[in-house]
Amino acid sequence: MLSQDLSDSRRSSDSSSPPTRFAVALYPGFQALDVFGPLDILNMLSQTRPLALEILSATLDPVPTLTPSSGHTTGQSVLPTRTFADAADDIEVLLVPGGFGSRDPANVAPVVEFVRKAYPRLRYLLTVCTGSAVVASSGILDGRRATSNKRAWEWATAQGPRVNWVRRARWVVDGNVWTSSGVSAGIDMMYAFVADRYGEDVAQTLADASEYVRNTDPEWDPFAGEAENGAAK
Amino acid sequence: MLSQDLSDSRRSSDSSSPPTRFAVALYPGFQALDVFGPLDILNMLSQTRPLALEILSATLDPVPTLTPSSGHTTGQSVLPTRTFADAADDIEVLLVPGGFGSRDPANVAPVVEFVRKAYPRLRYLLTVCTGSAVVASSGILDGRRATSNKRAWEWATAQGPRVNWVRRARWVVDGNVWTSSGVSAGIDMMYAFVADRYGEDVAQTLADASEYVRNTDPEWDPFAGEAENGAAK
Repeated sequence: MLSQDLSDSRRSSDSSSPPTRFAVALYPGFQALDVFGPLDILNMLSQTRPLALEILSATLDPVPTLTPSSGHTTGQSVLPTRTFADAADDIEVLLVPGGFGSRDPANVAPVVEFVRKAYPRLRYLLTVCTGSAVVASSGILDGRRATSNKRAWEWATAQGPRVNWVRRARWVVDGNVWTSSGVSAGIDMMYAFVADRYGEDVAQTLADASEYVRNTDPEWDPFAGEAENGAAK
Repeated sequence: MLSQDLSDSRRSSDSSSPPTRFAVALYPGFQALDVFGPLDILNMLSQTRPLALEILSATLDPVPTLTPSSGHTTGQSVLPTRTFADAADDIEVLLVPGGFGSRDPANVAPVVEFVRKAYPRLRYLLTVCTGSAVVASSGILDGRRATSNKRAWEWATAQGPRVNWVRRARWVVDGNVWTSSGVSAGIDMMYAFVADRYGEDVAQTLADASEYVRNTDPEWDPFAGEAENGAAK
């Protein structure tokens, strides 16, 4: 487990050009808002500067939020633009959402394999909700601070026993990895990422356009309950 | 223009069974969060009771958020489940999102035609952002109180000169029509709708699961600026 000092020293202080090439890794049973909260912000940002976004999945078939394991009866399906196998080599930012589909190892195996392969070339890896559990199972988060959905905490943290899980957090930044808490927290994390990489004024302008009141404190978390960092025992 | 008293008397006090059959009307250039903010709530709600959701559009082709007029360079495409022509007769709740695509009358003509035809059979009509402008152009909102996106206020209100536009509002309920302000406001409106129709406890349980802090006051609106009700002159 990293000391706080080391962890802080690994926080991004990259002042190079803001990223322009994004991708999102979809799998059946992703949670819709985990994806479209952050991507709606990117869509708006792409009005002011050219951005590229690949919507990746194992195949080019539409990817449903609805799977038997979700227990939902309503859902939506999103069209990928490329398969993991055909993903561009120059993706800078990868977003991994959560959702009920993340609970099935076979279902997310292609995501885990892709993240493991792509991570060394990424500038930033972002996860929402149980997306951090998917990424944790790849080993990438070992020794890092990260957070996840509070309702799925025990299961999620068990996917990465060597991760320094932070329960009370809206989102956590460790090095080039940003992880957010459950579902809606991904919106605040993405505004924070935009603020960090493109400027606070840019982030606030987008939030105002979306009529969204940001939670700008990463340690603000009314959903943590009795905060005990680390994995549930 | 309705008096406040008459308007209030038309507010829903329907205590009959909660609706179970939903639809959303998509068109190219819809705003992603206008749709997936509310629908993510429905998806979660559908875990606790069977709901049906039709994703309607003019054709069965994937519907893109990205159009030339949006000025975006990133976008996503969603798969419809039925065309407007084949929509079920028993839809109870129709959601109409906003987005840059709403600005082009030819683009939204199929939506306007569908809403006009479907409205008499609906129990509830919900709009997000400039979705109210689309619906206003059908005449359905004439004489009703409604709101819309603050950044698009002048244009949106001009689509319904006989609508009693309410500028300072997170959302507005008039009879069986619920209209929300820009983009993110649709999330608060849908939680309010769920609270009204399924119970406050149900809405709060879903918001907690989504780690979302609701804005529960429909008159709360930090984005209204100098609030002048009625259309911009």
